[in-house]
Amino acid sequence: MEKLSTQPYKGTRDFYPRDMKLRNWFFGVIRKALETAAFDEYNGPMLESLDLYIAKSGEEIANEQTYNFTDRGGRRLAVRPEMTPTVARLVAAKMGELNFPLKWFSIPNLYRYERPQRGRLREHWQVNVDIFGCDTFDADLEVISTAIMLLRAFGADSSMFKMHINNRRFFNDVIATIAGTDAEGSRKVSKVVDRKNKIPREAYVTEMKNLGLDDEKIEKIDSLYTMSVDQATSLCPDSVGSAELLQLFSALRECKLDKYCVFDFGIIRGLDYYTGTVFEMFDEAPENNRAMFGGGRYDNLVGLFVKNTNISGVGFGFGDVTLENFLVTHDLIPDIYAQSTKVLVTRFDDVPYAKYAATVDKLREAGIVSSVYVGTKKFGKQIDYAVKENYTHVVILGATEVVQGTVKIKDLATHEEKTIEYYELANFFKKRK
Amino acid sequence: MEKLSTQPYKGTRDFYPRDMKLRNWFFGVIRKALETAAFDEYNGPMLESLDLYIAKSGEEIANEQTYNFTDRGGRRLAVRPEMTPTVARLVAAKMGELNFPLKWFSIPNLYRYERPQRGRLREHWQVNVDIFGCDTFDADLEVISTAIMLLRAFGADSSMFKMHINNRRFFNDVIATIAGTDAEGSRKVSKVVDRKNKIPREAYVTEMKNLGLDDEKIEKIDSLYTMSVDQATSLCPDSVGSAELLQLFSALRECKLDKYCVFDFGIIRGLDYYTGTVFEMFDEAPENNRAMFGGGRYDNLVGLFVKNTNISGVGFGFGDVTLENFLVTHDLIPDIYAQSTKVLVTRFDDVPYAKYAATVDKLREAGIVSSVYVGTKKFGKQIDYAVKENYTHVVILGATEVVQGTVKIKDLATHEEKTIEYYELANFFKKRK
Repeated sequence: MEKLSTQPYKGTRDFYPRDMKLRNWFFGVIRKALETAAFDEYNGPMLESLDLYIAKSGEEIANEQTYNFTDRGGRRLAVRPEMTPTVARLVAAKMGELNFPLKWFSIPNLYRYERPQRGRLREHWQVNVDIFGCDTFDADLEVISTAIMLLRAFGADSSMFKMHINNRRFFNDVIATIAGTDAEGSRKVSKVVDRKNKIPREAYVTEMKNLGLDDEKIEKIDSLYTMSVDQATSLCPDSVGSAELLQLFSALRECKLDKYCVFDFGIIRGLDYYTGTVFEMFDEAPENNRAMFGGGRYDNLVGLFVKNTNISGVGFGFGDVTLENFLVTHDLIPDIYAQSTKVLVTRFDDVPYAKYAATVDKLREAGIVSSVYVGTKKFGKQIDYAVKENYTHVVILGATEVVQGTVKIKDLATHEEKTIEYYELANFFKKRK
Repeated sequence: MEKLSTQPYKGTRDFYPRDMKLRNWFFGVIRKALETAAFDEYNGPMLESLDLYIAKSGEEIANEQTYNFTDRGGRRLAVRPEMTPTVARLVAAKMGELNFPLKWFSIPNLYRYERPQRGRLREHWQVNVDIFGCDTFDADLEVISTAIMLLRAFGADSSMFKMHINNRRFFNDVIATIAGTDAEGSRKVSKVVDRKNKIPREAYVTEMKNLGLDDEKIEKIDSLYTMSVDQATSLCPDSVGSAELLQLFSALRECKLDKYCVFDFGIIRGLDYYTGTVFEMFDEAPENNRAMFGGGRYDNLVGLFVKNTNISGVGFGFGDVTLENFLVTHDLIPDIYAQSTKVLVTRFDDVPYAKYAATVDKLREAGIVSSVYVGTKKFGKQIDYAVKENYTHVVILGATEVVQGTVKIKDLATHEEKTIEYYELANFFKKRK
């Protein structure tokens, strides 16, 4: 019979204990920081109706970029590619009972159907942080300061990352002001500006000229990319977006978070559902300088589910691959494999198994990570096993020790052996935990 | 535009913060107990090759009971319905590097395509515990005692659950001995016995008679269901299965675990891949008396991936729905929503926001769960919000307090207010944490 492949599916990963320990560590840091900041965790199903993603992103993107199929009841399902439609659904379902503003987070696994590349796998885990039901800039500030807080929780400082911030209302208004076009015209110009960095300069200029913009106007738009928030907003002082930007940056300065933040007209986040503040977190390492994650304010998602409602949301999603890259790049991973006490109770044939079971029970009751050796291999093999599995100590309890009421402890780092009274065993390890 | 449904997909669940808190609590208890017993956590992808499940369970079952589809590269994929093929794949992929015996666990989400019913949903989370690479009964004992330990970690005692144990080798041998058939004949008889409780008594007797068994033999098989392990194994004393059963029960007695265990000839776990010890954990509550989960020894799974290899495994999988039912039935869920200190810093317009941000930073640094109120609602609304969100205290910091260098604390349970020095704030809460 032909043997099955041992490889995981393309673009997905296996997490062996060492990998899992790392992921549990960094999501543990994040979970603790978010819980301390009074965010509540939620989750939802891995399979969702494909309609959720079609309604948000259109039929083509939903079909192409998600794993989707039809169940035997004719329902079109998708393996969730992102968490935002799910959380909007949860909020919509219990709108009347929920106590706004909600501060929610989740750490789901997500699937994207795309060609795997560095930092972009088909399966990843993503921290999602959202605030629902606060229309003022306070929620934007809270979400941005939370993103900064999460990186700081790992010991990262302002030399390592920078939050780039823009505003979609401001973007639309300043384009309209400079281009002098009507609403429809501005929308078309915005679409070209959105693609500015994805197409050759020449093509960009041609497209802009086709929309009626002359060199001066094109240059004026160019200049926005290097302006401070004060300069940029002075171009359209009456825009609600300008006011929002100024208010946000003023609060960031007040809270001494401005050293982590910068105004960046280049942050648009596609022409999708964002309506106000948008932001992207950049890794500042020269060799890794790029956006790690982004987010912003979206006002209409809950409205996909419930008529005549407008519960605004603001949030971001931050993937595990990106986070790990960032931590590795800046050497922010402590020695999580460092050996905290882990005790293997070795076995001999001439001592009843019950003695070993009782010993390990005693150690575990005292909170000491411990195990009886599983199996009947010779003592030397048991020691080899203990060394390879990062045990710090072995407990030796042979017939002699049992008769004497003692126990021998071998420290696997120093190779020292020590004989103590059996009843002192748990205390011995408790002291050095 | 038609609005989207807010319902989760049939047979799946949404986890609002309250639900999530419960699930995090009970999986936290389990994770801690397993880690203390030196089990290592692993995980794998949600999508796997459908071939894994076909190789293990056959084309029909794999196709019918899994969510499966073909990707654009023509690969047949399944949303994982169970974790065992994945863990066997992981073991096979790194056989040469791994240090056996492995003590591994995982808490994956799984999908089964079947009609949802009580305790059996389409999506659930499952604790999987396995030991790989130990051929002797020691691993069976370790896995069974781990299952018992997990329930005891919640405060459950021997009146609440019972582990029912049988052995597949013994099962085959004792059937062969009683029926007096050849290997093929015994296999056929075993298949009928396996379905004993699923078909009417009359049909059972007819099928057995068709295979050449007379009333006496049928009665003898019947009598096995009420026998002790000593009585049952005396019927085929030379069977390896008998020896394994006796050894296991003797060790359970030695370790004083026999009060949690019982020999039960009715435990077969289908005619699938189990090869030795098989077991099922029963809820002993009269209103809920049924198998909660099961497991056993399987010797050939890694062999699906690697030629000429035989790494044995023994383990079990325990679902979140079943666990929650058990804990609720036996009233083993403490008040996990009990209010540990959670502090809302209320806001006033005439105090700069930075003052509030600094206050909450100070509280969080001291490990106090806390938040500034997000938004600009009136004080009364902020208090309402705090009460509904289970905050225990509000911190009141108006212009007067800022000038005085004081802060007012309102206890939301007692309604008491207290004014303290601002610099004492973190200490005040640290003391009562």
